[in-house]
Amino acid sequence: MANFDLTRLLAKDNGGKIILLVLDGLGGLPMEPGGPTELEAASTPNMDRLAQEGTTGMSIPIARGVEPGSGPGHLALFGYDPLRYSIGRGALEAAGIGLDLRPGDVAARGNFATIDENGLIVDRRAGRISTEKGAEAVADLKKIVLPGVETIVEEVKEHRFVLLMRGEGLDPRVEETDPLEVGKPPLKCEPEPAAKEIIAAQHTADLVNQFIAEAAERLKPHYPANFINLRGFASDPALPKFKDVYKLNAACVAVYPMYQGVSRLVGMDVIPTKPMDSPEDEFNLVAQHWDSYDFFFVHIKYTDSRGEDGNFDAKVDVIEQVDAALPILLNLNPDTLIITGDHSTPAKMKQHSFHEVPTLFWAPAIVRPDEVTAFGERTCVRGGLGFFPATDIMMYALAHAGRLGRYGA
Amino acid sequence: MANFDLTRLLAKDNGGKIILLVLDGLGGLPMEPGGPTELEAASTPNMDRLAQEGTTGMSIPIARGVEPGSGPGHLALFGYDPLRYSIGRGALEAAGIGLDLRPGDVAARGNFATIDENGLIVDRRAGRISTEKGAEAVADLKKIVLPGVETIVEEVKEHRFVLLMRGEGLDPRVEETDPLEVGKPPLKCEPEPAAKEIIAAQHTADLVNQFIAEAAERLKPHYPANFINLRGFASDPALPKFKDVYKLNAACVAVYPMYQGVSRLVGMDVIPTKPMDSPEDEFNLVAQHWDSYDFFFVHIKYTDSRGEDGNFDAKVDVIEQVDAALPILLNLNPDTLIITGDHSTPAKMKQHSFHEVPTLFWAPAIVRPDEVTAFGERTCVRGGLGFFPATDIMMYALAHAGRLGRYGA
Repeated sequence: MANFDLTRLLAKDNGGKIILLVLDGLGGLPMEPGGPTELEAASTPNMDRLAQEGTTGMSIPIARGVEPGSGPGHLALFGYDPLRYSIGRGALEAAGIGLDLRPGDVAARGNFATIDENGLIVDRRAGRISTEKGAEAVADLKKIVLPGVETIVEEVKEHRFVLLMRGEGLDPRVEETDPLEVGKPPLKCEPEPAAKEIIAAQHTADLVNQFIAEAAERLKPHYPANFINLRGFASDPALPKFKDVYKLNAACVAVYPMYQGVSRLVGMDVIPTKPMDSPEDEFNLVAQHWDSYDFFFVHIKYTDSRGEDGNFDAKVDVIEQVDAALPILLNLNPDTLIITGDHSTPAKMKQHSFHEVPTLFWAPAIVRPDEVTAFGERTCVRGGLGFFPATDIMMYALAHAGRLGRYGA
Repeated sequence: MANFDLTRLLAKDNGGKIILLVLDGLGGLPMEPGGPTELEAASTPNMDRLAQEGTTGMSIPIARGVEPGSGPGHLALFGYDPLRYSIGRGALEAAGIGLDLRPGDVAARGNFATIDENGLIVDRRAGRISTEKGAEAVADLKKIVLPGVETIVEEVKEHRFVLLMRGEGLDPRVEETDPLEVGKPPLKCEPEPAAKEIIAAQHTADLVNQFIAEAAERLKPHYPANFINLRGFASDPALPKFKDVYKLNAACVAVYPMYQGVSRLVGMDVIPTKPMDSPEDEFNLVAQHWDSYDFFFVHIKYTDSRGEDGNFDAKVDVIEQVDAALPILLNLNPDTLIITGDHSTPAKMKQHSFHEVPTLFWAPAIVRPDEVTAFGERTCVRGGLGFFPATDIMMYALAHAGRLGRYGA
């Protein structure tokens, strides 16, 4: 029985309130032999108290040894087996900016690029133009009309936009047009090899090529944004929704569109944020909407960002900001508070890594305490929940909130 | 998605070098309540340092509570689910002595035996004749000609040889001829019950019976090796190869043919050894071939042998020899060194056992240290990797060597 069969059978539509606080890329590594990780170095009196009162363990995001991408990492946290469910990048991006992806739609992630007079890509990000300039270029892309399909184009940020095609007979199984290297011509859109015989895929590729050709004409005044590459063609992944599988009214508080996108695709409401919102700002948004939802997914982006920068101290600082703001959440008296990450991003590696993620469950009513008294990698290894797949976090969350019934008589 | 789907998707054909050092039957038990295990009793300053700098855990070879055979134990270490993949004993023995097992071939393990004038087996090992005498008897078996198939007979060691049949219409699903007890007549070879209707199985059984009958004639001058029993009929298990599933050029350094056999079947090159090579000799072979491979499987046999002898102190001594020789491997600067066993062989039990196996990962660049500072059973229980199936060792090995890419965007 997959987890969802169990949760559909056992989940109750009443019970306690849950906060899933995700510090993106939380797990870390010592910079020097014998040294602390970022989380161990951070002064986190609130998390340490929660670890002492609650229980801890190590979450395995995808599989042992596997470095997670952000999409699969979050699907796993939400209880969706990331080896079974996947979200194409275009669908993620479209959902992220709030586009309503309907069955049959095909979405792609677009990048403005610079092309030279010989037709070679010389900058894959068009000099990272401003979001304002991007929006001006998008305004001209909106004028493109394709035969038989509606096109929706929206600016995301800087050189990034989304193209959504809506109409009959589309198929997302077409290849990207980005040559991924400068000094090369853009690629023609083609059906994927496995979809070569699929008429809808060929039709979609033809429309994409037509869109790009017309874009090249219309973008001439927008140099350096005088060309586009399209990537990650995808349709709605049709994920089961939180309300269906968990009987939860769920909300997302996240500052980055991508995480809002995944949340929308699993049926969460997205509470509007501002890009520069601090952990404190995000927690205050939870407080404002506390009465409207059973479940809050709160996403802190900058632990991951500072890890990717290789800036150990700055990652420590973000963790400390989160800790300092935690009383805002605790004052709401959640029945279950989980603190974890979608993967590790050790500053030492400057990238996502395969290492397991320290995870904390706090649920005053029924959590079984362990011997761990501080929240960190070395301590969570001997935590009361042991090692578990990230996809079990939602099971524990529901259980600790009294929202899962008994299995069998 | 099975592990191999993941590794095929994510493995890179470049990255760090890996040494998988397997101390056969490493895990042990205290001889007296409160006493140390063999590994705990051994003085292992090098392994203890690696445990301190690296991370540790407990490997579950087959399934909790299951005592592993050597074949499945090694398949698991190599990442092949031992409940899904199996190697017939004949195939293992043939591969072990370097016979090239082709599709359609049927191989069996042969034992010289002694039969009396009443046709009863009186010694199932023919008095454990010398390898020299065995080879003389094999020379006469080589003269046997079967209709329509080629037969290859090779001495293994003492009373053991391999019979390989090559030709059209063979099937390995036939039963062993060894009655497994003295005082009984040899069994006639028959198709397995499930293969009763299979013509090729009946044909194979007929050929086997014909071979045995002719062998009985030809072996009369070789008393006590005046008869043969054939066991473990098997064909090529067609295992996926290391190069295919892991993108690794792999080599095996092992003194026993069986472990060389498993290694060959998963696509490793086998570096020639001498039967009495010490751990130091084996490590020096790794050093000699260091530049030619990405991955070395190094097998130490005598931890298991001394465990099976019930000789606690001698097993301790083998572990200490390995520890003393470890600097030879460390001087090669491997990116990842794993020390583990294929199963436990506690001297107290004088046999393989189901107990989990202490395991150590050392990877100076990116290993996440735990609180363990000595390599032993009691310490590894609280190691940074927890309890994991042995089949995950290769995932961690690739990950620690930087040879696995990210899953998803």
